Amino acid sequence: MENNKKFAVIGGGSWATAIVKMLCENLDQVGWYMRSVYAIEHIKRNDHNPSYLSSVEFDVNQLKLSNDINEIVAEADVCIFAIPSAFLYTELENLTVDLKGKIIFSAIKGIVPETGLIVGEHFHEHYDIPLEDIGVLTGPCHAEEVALERLSYLTIACADEEKADYVASKLSSDYINCKTTDDIIGTEYAAVLKNIYAIAAGIAHGLGYGDNFQSVLMSNSIREMKRFIKKVHKMKRNINDSAYLGDLLVTGYSVFSRNRLFGNMLGKGYTVRSAQLEMSMIAEGYYATNSAYKINSEKGARTPILDAVYSILYDNKNPKKVFKKLADKLD
Amino acid sequence: MENNKKFAVIGGGSWATAIVKMLCENLDQVGWYMRSVYAIEHIKRNDHNPSYLSSVEFDVNQLKLSNDINEIVAEADVCIFAIPSAFLYTELENLTVDLKGKIIFSAIKGIVPETGLIVGEHFHEHYDIPLEDIGVLTGPCHAEEVALERLSYLTIACADEEKADYVASKLSSDYINCKTTDDIIGTEYAAVLKNIYAIAAGIAHGLGYGDNFQSVLMSNSIREMKRFIKKVHKMKRNINDSAYLGDLLVTGYSVFSRNRLFGNMLGKGYTVRSAQLEMSMIAEGYYATNSAYKINSEKGARTPILDAVYSILYDNKNPKKVFKKLADKLD
Repeated sequence: MENNKKFAVIGGGSWATAIVKMLCENLDQVGWYMRSVYAIEHIKRNDHNPSYLSSVEFDVNQLKLSNDINEIVAEADVCIFAIPSAFLYTELENLTVDLKGKIIFSAIKGIVPETGLIVGEHFHEHYDIPLEDIGVLTGPCHAEEVALERLSYLTIACADEEKADYVASKLSSDYINCKTTDDIIGTEYAAVLKNIYAIAAGIAHGLGYGDNFQSVLMSNSIREMKRFIKKVHKMKRNINDSAYLGDLLVTGYSVFSRNRLFGNMLGKGYTVRSAQLEMSMIAEGYYATNSAYKINSEKGARTPILDAVYSILYDNKNPKKVFKKLADKLD
Repeated sequence: MENNKKFAVIGGGSWATAIVKMLCENLDQVGWYMRSVYAIEHIKRNDHNPSYLSSVEFDVNQLKLSNDINEIVAEADVCIFAIPSAFLYTELENLTVDLKGKIIFSAIKGIVPETGLIVGEHFHEHYDIPLEDIGVLTGPCHAEEVALERLSYLTIACADEEKADYVASKLSSDYINCKTTDDIIGTEYAAVLKNIYAIAAGIAHGLGYGDNFQSVLMSNSIREMKRFIKKVHKMKRNINDSAYLGDLLVTGYSVFSRNRLFGNMLGKGYTVRSAQLEMSMIAEGYYATNSAYKINSEKGARTPILDAVYSILYDNKNPKKVFKKLADKLD
């Protein structure tokens, strides 16, 4: 593979900003699409994103910024998507440029609500991208720590090992260690499910359960994640690798996780609607819960934690009662 | 098995106090040995332990307190030992009463420094207790949350299933869920090793590594624990069960863990000696590191984290340099 592929990042949030920063350690030029013209102008004038990871200073000569997704995608050989899964479908409707022949990476931790598919599957089924051109960029990684250049580990998944290695080489640096795998389905589901378990952790905390329960919840969550992923895509994998267990822990133990915060409010007595209004955003795990629950209703893995979160989020069940029952199913 | 066995707890610390509290939910009388006459008199007069979990109020009529270990052990059918492993050997030298015929449970998370054995093995080899009379009481469980009656899960390990069930039934309550297993060796080693990984987590934190690294460290720790335990006692076990992974997490993520605090001071630049003096105690993991390292030098599991902690604690190596090398071995 030639070593001159052009990279573009699609998205203007904190994770997109962190990925652009990582790429800028290795590339002369990075394409960067974001919707906000204001943010683009701010970056051009002040060298940093006004809203996310604003401590990160860019050399704007390295950036090709645009709010025209077609312009950015057209020039890129490797497109890394890092926008919330809830907006992906409508963002992609603006796309007139053909994605075929490009390498498409998902850095999105969610399920596309309109299709119920994980992002890789969505590109494969709706954009006819061959699986060997699809990849996943996953943590465990808080964008905020990338901004601080604290040592972090990424997992780069692609069925085509050479492409995984290539993308990994462009993201690696003094503070980023990359590991590669061919488990694009499993790593992406792990990134989706961990947000649901983070909501569960938040609910438990809000209800007054302590650290002992949290550790049991996480121990049960990783076993549940293993059962779920095995049903949707059976292959040899070690569920305790960083992309699965590590990613679960970095989110489930984070007091900054939006999903955990959302759960915490539910545990404290907020309704789903009022918690969402108060946060002025919707946590990824909210959609993921619905999609994962529906997928599993066909697959039939034993998922007491997912079921409990679903019943609270979508069946309006009382968190205290649901968790009392859940607690008897954990061990 | 007759349902009238007499229980005794050996130890006066917070974990011993928590175990006495749990037993008092189910038993009319609990024997309780502790060294301090002052503490015993305080409990008799004021209904609580003066130094540990002092919010826990006892009905002293339920307690048979003594600072004579022989008196307490003589009357008991089930002895639960909950003293630091470093003091076990000398405590047991005072014992003239025969332990044979009694059920001996270890609630100690450590290796007996004088013999290099885990506690169950120590009783088996030095006191000739048959393995089916030996059990392990393990977490994930902070004693402080038992005091608050926050829902916690214990694992009760005994080769004799009936005895495991019996002891579990005497510890279970509204706020304690017990699970049983026959893996007495694996659960006890897990309880030992987790303190070493908690020291590693503390060192990393002290050195300025963040949450991303911590999650990778824990993900690598559980894989290392699996390799180590498999070498010392191969059997079918799920390393993600609460007794292994849960126990690792509740300690490795606890800001109150003495082992993590000890590691944190090393990461901040304290010498081993000065950290120990400052803490006015020696963390269990300090001894465990030496013992586990020696055991593994014969067994030969790949243990980069244990090796790193050992080199800092016992070879006076620079934590920053050791962790820089360790980071490249993690994934």
